[in-house]
Amino acid sequence: MTFASVLVLNGPNLNLLGTREPAIYGRETLADVARRCAQAGERLGLAVDFRQSNAEHQLIDWLHDARERIDGIVINPAAYTHTSVALADALSAIAKPVIEVHISNVHKREAFRHHSYVSPIAEAIIVGCGTQGYVLALERMAVLLDKGTEQ
Amino acid sequence: MTFASVLVLNGPNLNLLGTREPAIYGRETLADVARRCAQAGERLGLAVDFRQSNAEHQLIDWLHDARERIDGIVINPAAYTHTSVALADALSAIAKPVIEVHISNVHKREAFRHHSYVSPIAEAIIVGCGTQGYVLALERMAVLLDKGTEQ
Amino acid sequence: MTFASVLVLNGPNLNLLGTREPAIYGRETLADVARRCAQAGERLGLAVDFRQSNAEHQLIDWLHDARERIDGIVINPAAYTHTSVALADALSAIAKPVIEVHISNVHKREAFRHHSYVSPIAEAIIVGCGTQGYVLALERMAVLLDKGTEQ
Amino acid sequence: MTFASVLVLNGPNLNLLGTREPAIYGRETLADVARRCAQAGERLGLAVDFRQSNAEHQLIDWLHDARERIDGIVINPAAYTHTSVALADALSAIAKPVIEVHISNVHKREAFRHHSYVSPIAEAIIVGCGTQGYVLALERMAVLLDKGTEQ
Amino acid sequence: MTFASVLVLNGPNLNLLGTREPAIYGRETLADVARRCAQAGERLGLAVDFRQSNAEHQLIDWLHDARERIDGIVINPAAYTHTSVALADALSAIAKPVIEVHISNVHKREAFRHHSYVSPIAEAIIVGCGTQGYVLALERMAVLLDKGTEQ
Amino acid sequence: MTFASVLVLNGPNLNLLGTREPAIYGRETLADVARRCAQAGERLGLAVDFRQSNAEHQLIDWLHDARERIDGIVINPAAYTHTSVALADALSAIAKPVIEVHISNVHKREAFRHHSYVSPIAEAIIVGCGTQGYVLALERMAVLLDKGTEQ
Amino acid sequence: MTFASVLVLNGPNLNLLGTREPAIYGRETLADVARRCAQAGERLGLAVDFRQSNAEHQLIDWLHDARERIDGIVINPAAYTHTSVALADALSAIAKPVIEVHISNVHKREAFRHHSYVSPIAEAIIVGCGTQGYVLALERMAVLLDKGTEQ
Amino acid sequence: MTFASVLVLNGPNLNLLGTREPAIYGRETLADVARRCAQAGERLGLAVDFRQSNAEHQLIDWLHDARERIDGIVINPAAYTHTSVALADALSAIAKPVIEVHISNVHKREAFRHHSYVSPIAEAIIVGCGTQGYVLALERMAVLLDKGTEQ
Amino acid sequence: MTFASVLVLNGPNLNLLGTREPAIYGRETLADVARRCAQAGERLGLAVDFRQSNAEHQLIDWLHDARERIDGIVINPAAYTHTSVALADALSAIAKPVIEVHISNVHKREAFRHHSYVSPIAEAIIVGCGTQGYVLALERMAVLLDKGTEQ
Amino acid sequence: MTFASVLVLNGPNLNLLGTREPAIYGRETLADVARRCAQAGERLGLAVDFRQSNAEHQLIDWLHDARERIDGIVINPAAYTHTSVALADALSAIAKPVIEVHISNVHKREAFRHHSYVSPIAEAIIVGCGTQGYVLALERMAVLLDKGTEQ
Amino acid sequence: MTFASVLVLNGPNLNLLGTREPAIYGRETLADVARRCAQAGERLGLAVDFRQSNAEHQLIDWLHDARERIDGIVINPAAYTHTSVALADALSAIAKPVIEVHISNVHKREAFRHHSYVSPIAEAIIVGCGTQGYVLALERMAVLLDKGTEQ
Amino acid sequence: MTFASVLVLNGPNLNLLGTREPAIYGRETLADVARRCAQAGERLGLAVDFRQSNAEHQLIDWLHDARERIDGIVINPAAYTHTSVALADALSAIAKPVIEVHISNVHKREAFRHHSYVSPIAEAIIVGCGTQGYVLALERMAVLLDKGTEQ
Repeated sequence: MTFASVLVLNGPNLNLLGTREPAIYGRETLADVARRCAQAGERLGLAVDFRQSNAEHQLIDWLHDARERIDGIVINPAAYTHTSVALADALSAIAKPVIEVHISNVHKREAFRHHSYVSPIAEAIIVGCGTQGYVLALERMAVLLDKGTEQ
Repeated sequence: MTFASVLVLNGPNLNLLGTREPAIYGRETLADVARRCAQAGERLGLAVDFRQSNAEHQLIDWLHDARERIDGIVINPAAYTHTSVALADALSAIAKPVIEVHISNVHKREAFRHHSYVSPIAEAIIVGCGTQGYVLALERMAVLLDKGTEQ
Repeated sequence: MTFASVLVLNGPNLNLLGTREPAIYGRETLADVARRCAQAGERLGLAVDFRQSNAEHQLIDWLHDARERIDGIVINPAAYTHTSVALADALSAIAKPVIEVHISNVHKREAFRHHSYVSPIAEAIIVGCGTQGYVLALERMAVLLDKGTEQ
Repeated sequence: MTFASVLVLNGPNLNLLGTREPAIYGRETLADVARRCAQAGERLGLAVDFRQSNAEHQLIDWLHDARERIDGIVINPAAYTHTSVALADALSAIAKPVIEVHISNVHKREAFRHHSYVSPIAEAIIVGCGTQGYVLALERMAVLLDKGTEQ
Repeated sequence: MTFASVLVLNGPNLNLLGTREPAIYGRETLADVARRCAQAGERLGLAVDFRQSNAEHQLIDWLHDARERIDGIVINPAAYTHTSVALADALSAIAKPVIEVHISNVHKREAFRHHSYVSPIAEAIIVGCGTQGYVLALERMAVLLDKGTEQ
Repeated sequence: MTFASVLVLNGPNLNLLGTREPAIYGRETLADVARRCAQAGERLGLAVDFRQSNAEHQLIDWLHDARERIDGIVINPAAYTHTSVALADALSAIAKPVIEVHISNVHKREAFRHHSYVSPIAEAIIVGCGTQGYVLALERMAVLLDKGTEQ
Repeated sequence: MTFASVLVLNGPNLNLLGTREPAIYGRETLADVARRCAQAGERLGLAVDFRQSNAEHQLIDWLHDARERIDGIVINPAAYTHTSVALADALSAIAKPVIEVHISNVHKREAFRHHSYVSPIAEAIIVGCGTQGYVLALERMAVLLDKGTEQ
Repeated sequence: MTFASVLVLNGPNLNLLGTREPAIYGRETLADVARRCAQAGERLGLAVDFRQSNAEHQLIDWLHDARERIDGIVINPAAYTHTSVALADALSAIAKPVIEVHISNVHKREAFRHHSYVSPIAEAIIVGCGTQGYVLALERMAVLLDKGTEQ
Repeated sequence: MTFASVLVLNGPNLNLLGTREPAIYGRETLADVARRCAQAGERLGLAVDFRQSNAEHQLIDWLHDARERIDGIVINPAAYTHTSVALADALSAIAKPVIEVHISNVHKREAFRHHSYVSPIAEAIIVGCGTQGYVLALERMAVLLDKGTEQ
Repeated sequence: MTFASVLVLNGPNLNLLGTREPAIYGRETLADVARRCAQAGERLGLAVDFRQSNAEHQLIDWLHDARERIDGIVINPAAYTHTSVALADALSAIAKPVIEVHISNVHKREAFRHHSYVSPIAEAIIVGCGTQGYVLALERMAVLLDKGTEQ
Repeated sequence: MTFASVLVLNGPNLNLLGTREPAIYGRETLADVARRCAQAGERLGLAVDFRQSNAEHQLIDWLHDARERIDGIVINPAAYTHTSVALADALSAIAKPVIEVHISNVHKREAFRHHSYVSPIAEAIIVGCGTQGYVLALERMAVLLDKGTEQ
Repeated sequence: MTFASVLVLNGPNLNLLGTREPAIYGRETLADVARRCAQAGERLGLAVDFRQSNAEHQLIDWLHDARERIDGIVINPAAYTHTSVALADALSAIAKPVIEVHISNVHKREAFRHHSYVSPIAEAIIVGCGTQGYVLALERMAVLLDKGTEQ
């Protein structure tokens, strides 16, 4: 089986996952999430490249660098969801399917978190499924990248 | 294995699925979706009760009737997403976990489709995954209803 | 004494009264409220016709059917307060005095609950008096229907 | 002459036509309007199926049921004009020409009546022509369904 | 019977009641209303302290002075409903149940009268019941201050 | 038969009709429309005075000049629909029935085309009926100017 | 000649006139303005009662007290223009002609100064005429109170 | 005495003054107003050039032509008040004192009449003084053009 | 050392400080705050005149009376922050440096508390520092009034 | 070399260029600008037809008349930028490339000058380059009309 | 005495302090401010770690790195105040008291500078105190970190 | 000839120019644009320093570093146009003339791209001229930096 290649990007402050407010976000760290994604990728035939940065430009640069090499993008843009036109433009320029993930249900939070610059250019959005949202996104990506099997 | 019980509700016009605009929505009918949900339920240990109505009150009545008997709700409220406070109130009154599903990416459509009365009371929202969204919602529901295994 | 006739209408989800969130809404059921209204009607010289439906059209049909026979309307439109122009139009078409009742104080809740399509066509609005609000509305209706005594 | 088939739908409270506020709406009843539409249809080569319901879902169901059999829709959505995304979605799904009719000039009424969910998917809108508006709509429909003659 | 103590406050211009626009507001003066409140208090076991001022600070001072001695507040804030954060803050600081009364239906008037700084901190709001609204408010207050009997 | 007199006014850029974007607007020129209106007037007992100008003041002057001599106005204000308070004031000053016509469905176009200064002072509005809209407007005008026959 | 009686009211901070920012407001004090108004009244047959207060309730009380005795009101509500519904209600309750005066052109200042609660209930508004505005207002008042001569 | 020169401009539809809605606007025609202005000018030492046009560009051209020769402008822009940036720019370019006049109180009319493009560039605004407003404006202009005497 | 003179003004309801909601506002009374300000003034070379009133006009009158005698103003306008243009105008007229103080962080409270009429005319704003905020304001005022030493 | 033909249109008040506020707009007159455009056209192979009018309809008529004969349009719509849908419609109807020019930077001026009806239908917009902006626009037009050379 | 540890962060462009617009911002450089903070810290028992970056991610990374080691944060977020949800999220995640400082009074500047993403999560906000604001913030921080002494 | 020095800055994603969507953006790469700018600079007497970064802080740092050495700035801020107050502040701090360039016409794109933080501080804005826009900007800059020759 040829593995399709998926870039899983994580935005600012997600490096703290599992270390703050465990009552809300659980005790799972970002490293744990990376492991779950790798396992899911294994099962789904997806090679997962999992990264995090607090820097908007780093996320953009990674997207630019990867654009020849990847088949799809799963992104949890965190706070940049609501403020970064530059990141949304980069995602749009790559012209590969994008799935947006949010761990918590942003619609239960402040009004400014209800708007996303990424959603209009994403294929799919998965919100409030905890870290399982990454796995569900990869399951959807597997279907998107192999339209023959199922949709 | 004891099966948890999940009500899968579909709002107005979804009965036409697969019969209109196949280029956009595919050729899968709502009966096909029901079958996929039943199969996924089988696999996940969930007894799926799959229904559709064009009537707001019918959806509300079904929720009221089922409230003792079900453990969770997956709902594609379709147009009622944006207009029915009554349906959102019924979902809220049931006090069971709710997962909202939209087949297409509503954020690529008219502005009035970007607001949902259901989202603030849902646990999770899955948008733009086609009919696979129902299956992903059931996968998340399985985890929600059995917190021991994983989250 | 000739009894004037009052239709008391209840909107969606009010059939659940007393069965959910007793800490907020108390343990009184809608049947209890109906009994209180009947007793108050007895005392005030009002024949009370008490009904509930989750269906917008059922409420409208009841209003149409009753329009020759009733002298006034007390209505708790629940969620339809905020979304149903059709119900407000029906109330307006009947051309009988309308009193709007809300059990809880809607002004402490979400912003979309602060607007009512019914209020501009109602004579009076009674908010946050619990189920006693129905009795107060009937007391006001008794005065409205017999202007001689008091206002 | 083969008659084309036109569904004429009427929304909530229109069953009261002619019985309330005759100074504004005239004394003509909905039955009178149905007769005028039948006569106009006769003249124009259109088989007219004329219906009214206070129920949003009934209007939707009629549209779904008729979608194979009709060639065009004339609709006075009344209050649902301003609130029903579901009805607009049904009209859109039928993929037949739609003409929206309002008896009175809604632009002289409350601001919330100035917005219509139906207008963006209608071919034409006829406002404030009284019940003659139905006849004008049928005249336009006759042209739309027989583009050869005139436009 | 121990009487509970209720402060009934009236805001600006209400001293003119009964002397202007009798067609709308009736011929009852504020002194008449005070008498009705005293009688209702007698019947309900409430000692009523009835006052009016055109001065925002006088209303605030009365609230501060009375805060140890009263059990509840009925207030018709008149124009200060829409403009006085200071009065609303005073009502909030007293930490006793507040019932807001408006003689006419403010929702039939200018848009700026639809917003109230008092409503979010009131227990109940009674609108458009004429001067009977004061009596209804006292009836509700009697229940609030003696929760044992009824709610 | 005495002919009633109707002024049919056309606003800016309508002189180009039939010469640009025939796919959308058809090949009919404004002269063709004038001919259709004359014929319809013949049939309906209306003397039609058909004019077009790109100048706001010309349209206003024509209205002023004609105000003693005409019985009704059919106007397609084109772009002045959305920007000319002066034209709407002139129409209002004439105090004759006004019917507003738009050839295409303006509700499918930019948001600024959804507002009309003319609509609140018009009797009727006919939108999206192509050039047939002028004929339908004349049919309505005939009824308005001869209330005895029909409405 | 019987003198009509005019109350000239001045709102908050106007007591400082002539003592601050003479470059903008000139060196004329409020006492000077009172003198000019008295002289103009003499000439126009108006008995002028000229007052100033920083207290909203004082202005309201003066209006209430004067309501039997005066024929018209000239008011420069200063800051209360933009915030006092109570003052506007008092002016409205008096049911005598009101002319609103502002010394400087408020439309050149902050946006919140462009809205006036008084304007919709005033007969006339005179803005930016300096202290001469008071005299112009009295000239207009003289005409309003003696409609026979001129308007 | 050297006469200062004042251009008095009147916008669209004002040529109809006195011929429509005499109950509201009186029976005075624009020619009458011109005469009153001439007389007032005589008294005040102002040579008055009084003009009206329905054409925005004509008003602008007159302003341009007069800019060397006039000392001040009194303008009733009528409907162009609310829509013409071009007219406001022309007034601003002339760099002479401008006084804006409205015969009726625009603040009692539709919301779109509450905004004026002219007000921020005018020295003074006189509203709702009937046609006397022109005379008051000339009185103010006389003071503005001869600062020595009074302000 | 010559003491500069600072007026410390406190708005409505602040007289209740320390007597309500001690969990939030602490047990310190306004008299305690006055003492702290006096001590800080002593240390900083500032003569502190500390006052409170629930009356908007009282605050304005004090400002007017003090305007010759004081060098700066520290003000906690409480609720008048958000509603009193008159108070802001008085502060502006005094033309002395103003420092605005709020005990709690108003940005964590209702949206209407985020806007201040005082802030645009204040030199500095100190929010959420508890009653220490008064002392910090005096420290800043000392620097403002003696620019030589430090800024 | 065959010259392409460019219509350079100038909107209201631009005829005053160079005669008012030279500190801001410079001393160059519109005739000077016309000369610069002619010279630039000479150099670029463009026949320049340079016009100005204060009349909206004149600009529209010129566009209509020129539409067969010209290859592109450079327009400084001045105040009509912000108010004329009719002019924008005319530009759109011509279906030739349009370049919008503003001499000063409108984004430093009033908010209503930040919106342009022309921009969405223009190819390019050049703002704040002084009268050189016309030359730059012609340079761009030369490229647009001869795509072979450069873009 | 054990020193508490305070991180003092400075956002973009603050490195230019003292080198641009000295008339407004003074001649003090950021190095001078750092020295003042160190001295104040010395006096108050606070170890001050003073940093500046133009990079949003650098500020976030510093916060993450310091989160175990610091007791409080003083931040002048400069332009990121208004745009960086990511920085606000980082401050929120650290769960240590935050004091927001702005050197100039942002409420005298553009409207977009009136909103702060940081304020709702800060304990205190100090605005317009020049660079002394940093010292005042440290004084407040000293109290916050040692609640025993004073608040 | 002494060359003036111009910094040409390019914001995020512009490094992809010529490699994506060639149908829209053409095949020219950013290196090609740099070359064109260098050539134009040669011709115009401008030393061009051409740079691109995806990092907001990098653009800010370059501006800070260059501020002594450069005479003007040409910037295509790309997505930072709409979101970066920090970049706009940096441009403003440099106090050198700024010309803003956008390759495509942003007014044909999403509404959020119509607002620019840079425009109010720029001298000029050039939109939709393709990459030629850089050359036009340099031509304007040459004039700005040598006011003697022409403006």
